[in-house]
Amino acid sequence: MSSIKYDVIAVGNAIVDVLAPATDAFLEELNIPKNAMNLIDEDRATSLYAAMAAGKEASGGSAANTVAGVASLGGSAAYVGKVADDQLGEIFTHDIRAIGVDFNTPPLKGGPATARCLINVTPDAARSMSTFLGAAGLVTAADVEAGADAIAASRIVYLEGYLFDRDEAKTSFVRAAELAASAGRKTALTLSDLFCVERHRDAFKDLIANHIDILLANDAEIKALYQTEDFDAAVQMAAKHVEVVAVTRGADGAVMVRDGNTVSIPAEPVDTLVDTTGAGDLFAAGFLLGIAREQSLENAGKMGAISAAEVISHYGARPESELNAHISDAGIAL
Amino acid sequence: MSSIKYDVIAVGNAIVDVLAPATDAFLEELNIPKNAMNLIDEDRATSLYAAMAAGKEASGGSAANTVAGVASLGGSAAYVGKVADDQLGEIFTHDIRAIGVDFNTPPLKGGPATARCLINVTPDAARSMSTFLGAAGLVTAADVEAGADAIAASRIVYLEGYLFDRDEAKTSFVRAAELAASAGRKTALTLSDLFCVERHRDAFKDLIANHIDILLANDAEIKALYQTEDFDAAVQMAAKHVEVVAVTRGADGAVMVRDGNTVSIPAEPVDTLVDTTGAGDLFAAGFLLGIAREQSLENAGKMGAISAAEVISHYGARPESELNAHISDAGIAL
Repeated sequence: MSSIKYDVIAVGNAIVDVLAPATDAFLEELNIPKNAMNLIDEDRATSLYAAMAAGKEASGGSAANTVAGVASLGGSAAYVGKVADDQLGEIFTHDIRAIGVDFNTPPLKGGPATARCLINVTPDAARSMSTFLGAAGLVTAADVEAGADAIAASRIVYLEGYLFDRDEAKTSFVRAAELAASAGRKTALTLSDLFCVERHRDAFKDLIANHIDILLANDAEIKALYQTEDFDAAVQMAAKHVEVVAVTRGADGAVMVRDGNTVSIPAEPVDTLVDTTGAGDLFAAGFLLGIAREQSLENAGKMGAISAAEVISHYGARPESELNAHISDAGIAL
Repeated sequence: MSSIKYDVIAVGNAIVDVLAPATDAFLEELNIPKNAMNLIDEDRATSLYAAMAAGKEASGGSAANTVAGVASLGGSAAYVGKVADDQLGEIFTHDIRAIGVDFNTPPLKGGPATARCLINVTPDAARSMSTFLGAAGLVTAADVEAGADAIAASRIVYLEGYLFDRDEAKTSFVRAAELAASAGRKTALTLSDLFCVERHRDAFKDLIANHIDILLANDAEIKALYQTEDFDAAVQMAAKHVEVVAVTRGADGAVMVRDGNTVSIPAEPVDTLVDTTGAGDLFAAGFLLGIAREQSLENAGKMGAISAAEVISHYGARPESELNAHISDAGIAL
């Protein structure tokens, strides 16, 4: 077995977020599903952007936010994802490297632009996301192969469910899981989004049964996967197929299962809830690093909850303060 | 005289800001002058960006921030400035239109990229700006001529001193002042920056004597213009050449002169000072709209101070709440 270089390596959609304030009436008028992720084509991206308020741009992408969180927590992290050879691609590349994540996937030339996620944030801090996938969906098997050594040298390989929305990406995704397994590493998956689960339920179930050791989801996603309204039943069903399950429940905290042992933790309190963009991604950061470092299930969950609390207290999906300081303050030593 | 369509039309450098947190040690190490604007070339922009922390992108540009503020205050505004035909240019164009400013200068094709201002924000909320001018400096006389009707239909034409850093832009700038004068409108100028005054002192003095009705500056700039350490003397010297002078003094408020009448106002208190980027630009927004709407000098200053207080209480150089509500709350009716 090769030596360990990273706590977590992620494969995901490399996206730049455009965050703007919006009203609920605006979401209705523009047919934007609230608190979910909706895939849009370039024409819709143009017309929706034209209708949106003035915004701020910041690097995003679910699994990219997670590895940014891992780095901020003091972990080591790498990322595989596809940007285009354009200004937004440069911004994405700069930001993920600036926070300390290794990112070496070559940018796409001559194809679609870097992916953009148009995020309308309503006054209740809910985020409603419309994503033009662009270059992000074009992660190739070759990109994953180029990251094979990094995958083999990572404690956990983390896969973003959103990638299932493009067939080419899906293949790369399964390849990453195979590379991890053959190196004796753990593979983690997030279900990403309720609609994403609806679109790919059977494929997700197959993947979970065959390739996944650690499953992350929120309450709506896990219930949708098993088509039940019974939250606890859904969590226990997942636990039959994987070693570790962690399911977030917004303000109600999270429920985790490992070795038949179920642990619930509360959400971390926040002074002012500003923007929930990135909450699940940052929970995943703390939780995965906790698991990678052999923390107790409770401590790993607390690391997730603390990381999520930081990111929802400001606009944008990546940490703005050093998360490792918050973890030390909570008495957790990595 | 044609009818009035705009309270303020501005000619300025169309810039997208990249805002990132930094330490004072970082400024020293990278030779970034603190609390000032430094022009950089593309190579320096690349190396400096590579060294900076992960950032957020937001539309900026001094006079563009000012007209965004005028629109947020409930005034009508237009803008003349040059972006490139690229992603950052689209962002700039979207944001200024989304806030309600008319902006119709055609983007530059086949030339340099849209201007970027790399803004390092230190923990004391000071901003240190490194600007790659790119397309912004290439506003042509033709662009200004294309805006001639809008200029003639604006109560105030507002010129950004920073434009003096490119000769091509300087010509456009003087042309805008001439168009304003021939339509019987007022022309306002901001000195923009201490270093900008040092670079162009004589040209500024000529412009002020021949074309300017309303002069805006901060304390460092006005003292540099007249090469004196005596603040009051500098303000009174300026008042000999123009109808209205307004000089900001940071936390010490502002001093204004009109018709031999000198008025001082305090700064508006803010709960938490986050980022001073845009403070002067937003003071100009409130002050110019006050003058355009024939408010008292004191009320115009208060409109400026309230607008500046909003923008320094968050990251970024444009208002995030509706400024007209803050003005109404202060008992000022436009």
